[in-house]
Amino acid sequence: MVLINANFGRLTPSYLFSEVARKIAAFKAQNPGVEVIKLSIGDVTRPICPAAVEALHKAADEISTPEGFHGYGPEQGYAFLTEKIAAHDYNGLNISPDEIFISDGAKSDLGNFGDILSAENRVAVTDPVYPVYVDTNVMAGRHIEYLPCTEANGFNPQLPAVSPDIIYLCYPNNPTGTTLTRSRLKEWVDYALANDALILYDSAYEIFITEPDVPHSIYEIPGAERCAVEFRSFSKTAGFTGLRCGYTVVPKGICGTDANGQTYSLHSLWLRRQTTKFNGASYPIQRAAEAIYSPEGQRQIRENIAYYLNNARLMREGLSALGLKVFGGVNAPYVWVKTPEGISSWEFFDLMLHRCGVACTPGVGFGPAGEGYVRLTAFNTLENTEKAISRLANIFKEN
Amino acid sequence: MVLINANFGRLTPSYLFSEVARKIAAFKAQNPGVEVIKLSIGDVTRPICPAAVEALHKAADEISTPEGFHGYGPEQGYAFLTEKIAAHDYNGLNISPDEIFISDGAKSDLGNFGDILSAENRVAVTDPVYPVYVDTNVMAGRHIEYLPCTEANGFNPQLPAVSPDIIYLCYPNNPTGTTLTRSRLKEWVDYALANDALILYDSAYEIFITEPDVPHSIYEIPGAERCAVEFRSFSKTAGFTGLRCGYTVVPKGICGTDANGQTYSLHSLWLRRQTTKFNGASYPIQRAAEAIYSPEGQRQIRENIAYYLNNARLMREGLSALGLKVFGGVNAPYVWVKTPEGISSWEFFDLMLHRCGVACTPGVGFGPAGEGYVRLTAFNTLENTEKAISRLANIFKEN
Repeated sequence: MVLINANFGRLTPSYLFSEVARKIAAFKAQNPGVEVIKLSIGDVTRPICPAAVEALHKAADEISTPEGFHGYGPEQGYAFLTEKIAAHDYNGLNISPDEIFISDGAKSDLGNFGDILSAENRVAVTDPVYPVYVDTNVMAGRHIEYLPCTEANGFNPQLPAVSPDIIYLCYPNNPTGTTLTRSRLKEWVDYALANDALILYDSAYEIFITEPDVPHSIYEIPGAERCAVEFRSFSKTAGFTGLRCGYTVVPKGICGTDANGQTYSLHSLWLRRQTTKFNGASYPIQRAAEAIYSPEGQRQIRENIAYYLNNARLMREGLSALGLKVFGGVNAPYVWVKTPEGISSWEFFDLMLHRCGVACTPGVGFGPAGEGYVRLTAFNTLENTEKAISRLANIFKEN
Repeated sequence: MVLINANFGRLTPSYLFSEVARKIAAFKAQNPGVEVIKLSIGDVTRPICPAAVEALHKAADEISTPEGFHGYGPEQGYAFLTEKIAAHDYNGLNISPDEIFISDGAKSDLGNFGDILSAENRVAVTDPVYPVYVDTNVMAGRHIEYLPCTEANGFNPQLPAVSPDIIYLCYPNNPTGTTLTRSRLKEWVDYALANDALILYDSAYEIFITEPDVPHSIYEIPGAERCAVEFRSFSKTAGFTGLRCGYTVVPKGICGTDANGQTYSLHSLWLRRQTTKFNGASYPIQRAAEAIYSPEGQRQIRENIAYYLNNARLMREGLSALGLKVFGGVNAPYVWVKTPEGISSWEFFDLMLHRCGVACTPGVGFGPAGEGYVRLTAFNTLENTEKAISRLANIFKEN
């Protein structure tokens, strides 16, 4: 019988979102009159902006004619898109279009990037953490070290004691909604350069950054172009969760080595991986992504971001006023709420659901250091967000 | 420094298509007046059919509204599409919609499927071969055995002497354009069942099948649901090379084992892989794929297939009339042409290019057993195909 990848047997089943869904369904069955407001939504809800919709229509018409038909495109993405990204998202940062690889999304790239790296590498991830970093490395058989992010360290983990080869950083962070300042991110880049480590930097939420001292890209830090790969997505930036488009920046200066000490360019390896195992992102979707770089596109997507950030502000202010300690939500669509003394993540989840009809995500589901927190997202409507806060206020005022 | 996957160092650089392109460019530079006709095109050229274009427009309008917005979809694809595929492509074959996984294309799936399998497995591929099977297994560090497909064995390879764990079969075949009859495919299924091997069956070209004795799906053979995974694509079926959509059928009855003899369902493992490292195919593209299953959609895509098959017929007949030995082209868009006695693949390529201004692909580029052949594709226009044949006729008549 064919041998399976036995590392799959070491994966921890993730019950987080299915357990959240099960509890909500059970509550709804018992309380058919109560409308549950989900502040647990991990997906955007605002529609695709008119500029991108128009580009989709235009591309659909184009490919319906022999002259306008587009078949296989470049596996690494069309220049019309990589050039826009380089000029706009990496303006002044010395990233060239051919260092940008377009894909069907950051989740694919974050998982697939491991293909070019040895299973021997030691990996460090933050705790709490986006589960994809952990699961994809378990699948590859890599050893994983967890770096706790707590209130005490301001959710900015300590530099690792035992030097890892690969470090995943996600800022603005999912799930805590917190960020790294420029000087703090510089410490990580300096650490990676000094210790020959590779940083895989997930900046999927960079468009939510509002504060000036928070870097949008790791390449704002000198030297990062020699030690960091950056993953970005149009999912949260432009609501492309259902359209599927993201990109990965692999500067040509980053190298890895084999066991014999021969060095390889990660850019060349990733290009080889992508040309062999991927056939490019969908043409109309790349045209839609291009459209968000027009002045109208930028205005339109930023209206949606402002809408979500306003929800985040209302949650932060509303919950703080109730005496709850809240983090994040300033540069991110996530608000990380400390549960009241002695109440666990799941107990607080149950309390919010049963007393207020409001769903959140228990922080412990993202890792042990998430115990004692819940995650709220800004992706519901303004009306529902306000209603949820007012329901929480009614309960907490009673107490 | 981060350790790279050292298997990448063992990849053979593929110069085939770049060398073809380089030679064509050099010829054009020397002969600016000659219009080169490319019968080397590996991509479709007919535009997307009206039914699919209409579905794209409809989906674009839908996601522009809050009510119609579609964010993250199921990683394994929407039921509206898997149900159509099960009912249409697997009508009567006992494949259920939840055994069908939608993706961004067969190339991705063929490469990524290795994620769930051990690097210890021995792999068998045909020679000549679609390079993706080889390169993705070299990247994973697997041992590869080649099964020569020659005129002597009718391009149907012998059953392997040393039992492989994984067998790649592609029928209708790229590059030879040949097929397996039902009884011949049954031998492979019986062999896989008897030897506990897994067949990875690439049937990306099944829509080109015109002969009744050629199976469209491996699941037409009893027992295949216990030993075969089937990969399909909308790329050639509906011209989706630029839209990106394919699917993989993983029946629930197929198992693998770990080194301790514990069995695992490949369906469960692939679901885990896809939910962890993929976020579903683009929603509008899945709607476009759905549209090809409507009566108009079917009529429209089959018109394009008939167009290509007519080109293939003209090439077969035209080249046969010139005394050349040709294979394929009856159930496939590829015609496999034997070079005249004593002329190598590249020599015949040069001869066709320099004497006729017609480009082909040297067969040896697909593997050593392809030496002495060239591949022609049916994807050019009717006019160019006719013109190319007439140019070849002028030259070969002279000789």
